[in-house]
Amino acid sequence: MSLLATRAAFDTALSNLPPPDLASIERASVRQAELTKPAGSLGRLEEIALFMAGWQGRERPRADRIHAAVFAGNHGVAAQGVSAFPSEVTAQMVANFRQGGAAINALALACGADLEVVALNLDRPTADITQAPAMTEAECLAALNAGAEVVRDGIDLLFVGEMGIANTTPAAALCAQAFGGEAAAWVGRGSGIDDAAIIRKIGAVDRALELHGPHCGSPFETLRRLGGREIAAMAGAILAARMRRVPVLLDGFICCASIAPLAAVAPTITQHCIAAHCSAEAAHGQVLERLGLEPLLRLGMRLGEGSGAAVAAQIVRSALAAHNEMATFAEAAVAGAL
Amino acid sequence: MSLLATRAAFDTALSNLPPPDLASIERASVRQAELTKPAGSLGRLEEIALFMAGWQGRERPRADRIHAAVFAGNHGVAAQGVSAFPSEVTAQMVANFRQGGAAINALALACGADLEVVALNLDRPTADITQAPAMTEAECLAALNAGAEVVRDGIDLLFVGEMGIANTTPAAALCAQAFGGEAAAWVGRGSGIDDAAIIRKIGAVDRALELHGPHCGSPFETLRRLGGREIAAMAGAILAARMRRVPVLLDGFICCASIAPLAAVAPTITQHCIAAHCSAEAAHGQVLERLGLEPLLRLGMRLGEGSGAAVAAQIVRSALAAHNEMATFAEAAVAGAL
Repeated sequence: MSLLATRAAFDTALSNLPPPDLASIERASVRQAELTKPAGSLGRLEEIALFMAGWQGRERPRADRIHAAVFAGNHGVAAQGVSAFPSEVTAQMVANFRQGGAAINALALACGADLEVVALNLDRPTADITQAPAMTEAECLAALNAGAEVVRDGIDLLFVGEMGIANTTPAAALCAQAFGGEAAAWVGRGSGIDDAAIIRKIGAVDRALELHGPHCGSPFETLRRLGGREIAAMAGAILAARMRRVPVLLDGFICCASIAPLAAVAPTITQHCIAAHCSAEAAHGQVLERLGLEPLLRLGMRLGEGSGAAVAAQIVRSALAAHNEMATFAEAAVAGAL
Repeated sequence: MSLLATRAAFDTALSNLPPPDLASIERASVRQAELTKPAGSLGRLEEIALFMAGWQGRERPRADRIHAAVFAGNHGVAAQGVSAFPSEVTAQMVANFRQGGAAINALALACGADLEVVALNLDRPTADITQAPAMTEAECLAALNAGAEVVRDGIDLLFVGEMGIANTTPAAALCAQAFGGEAAAWVGRGSGIDDAAIIRKIGAVDRALELHGPHCGSPFETLRRLGGREIAAMAGAILAARMRRVPVLLDGFICCASIAPLAAVAPTITQHCIAAHCSAEAAHGQVLERLGLEPLLRLGMRLGEGSGAAVAAQIVRSALAAHNEMATFAEAAVAGAL
């Protein structure tokens, strides 16, 4: 049976988010204090080690199995002229992922992650959100579960990415609905659109919000009406990871937007997440702020695919290498602070 | 014969800094435009690929041989009570480096770097800079050349780090002398000193500047009077790398301070350098600004040893993986932007 079989199962999961294991954090923290360096001198690397300890329930957490899942979907709203690329590119890029030629292939290999590519009904785009709900209830549940299914036993760290021409448009709509504010505040240039397309994109988000806003009474309904398949799949994967206490590296704007409706009612949903980076997409910084997350990296990336998370995974690896491999003051016979 | 055999050889090197290979940057740039991603969407990763192409003179630059050199030295100024740790810790940490137990061992291994540890006369600290020049001319040249010697054939990327109890004090003095400003503006908490020690440290830097300032007419003389052996060695390594067009990842405050006197007369000295990170040491941000460098990472690290550079080396690896391994639009049969 699916982990998120019904709308009610999704709601139940969201209201029963497990906490990290505080005893493991405490043990990891004692270990950190004994390592041969001034206390606190590895900064955020030390925080990452404690975070990983808490979610894995281990004093010495691992990054042996990093799992990357890239979800792809197509969007009816592409017909509104909101992207610089035609919808065919989604399937072409999925083929590229499968042949190993995309950025995420190189970056996942570089960080030692397994890469799983999940194409979601590319020949059947979601409905145009300016005219109808993106998905039926069954379609939204199927997408959520396609996401949940990638969270298998033995994963030390998960990250999710996406590919879907036009998907910054539903992402902007989800953020505006979840956090409030004008459509224009959440709309950016995506893969690189011009000013005329920006105006069309703002118009499309405005119309979608006007049509669906009054009916978005729950995170599920917001995802179903304003989201997309790869977006719901990312939300499903992030929620399923939490249910199994698997730590997650969040990627870019669309990845973060996928949990915006969840965070609006359950702000602790991001507790098992590290924000990998802040992208160049205009509204990503705002979403991170609303999610209460300080990104690890600010490299001006704006590709999606999980690319930012793959780069940040290297930093998690470094953090755990220091935490697990360093000698203690006693082991190394080094004098502590005066 | 040593690369920097005399004071005059050092000056000559500094006034003949070679530029990057523009043709390789151009070829790498053409390649970037053909890769299966929206133009510019990998942000700083794309800039890193072009930077590496320029210094290596290759359209597809490598990070197969990353060389890390950690230099250690002791400082007479430690007697002024400017550090939280006793001077014996320098040698203890060198032993720890050699046994593989320090942060830099774990972090160098994680980024695939060879680690070389160079201890510089630990039993003979430099003179106390509040009372005399840190080094004689011969000592300073020996330290510069100990640095230059680590830049061997076949290195794709170099980073340097340091260990030296009390060495943020000479580093602050070097910055104040090179860039101007009050001692207090360049003095921070180092490995974690209290307010009383901060006051002693500011006093020590003030006295050193008063004593040596009038005689610091050249970068060499500033390094010799206010620096230290591991500091001069880092400067020598960074300068020698430039002479051989080897790209460099700069580490923290002390590493950046080591080239402050060079940058004051030859601002392009940082052209072959990427700033790995901005540390938590108060003045590091200021040095980076004076050096005209935007750091890759801001992780609140403040350990030295080359630790920040080792983390950033992973990002360089990721950048080159994307640049070298991705398919072009033509290879992958993906449609370009509309």
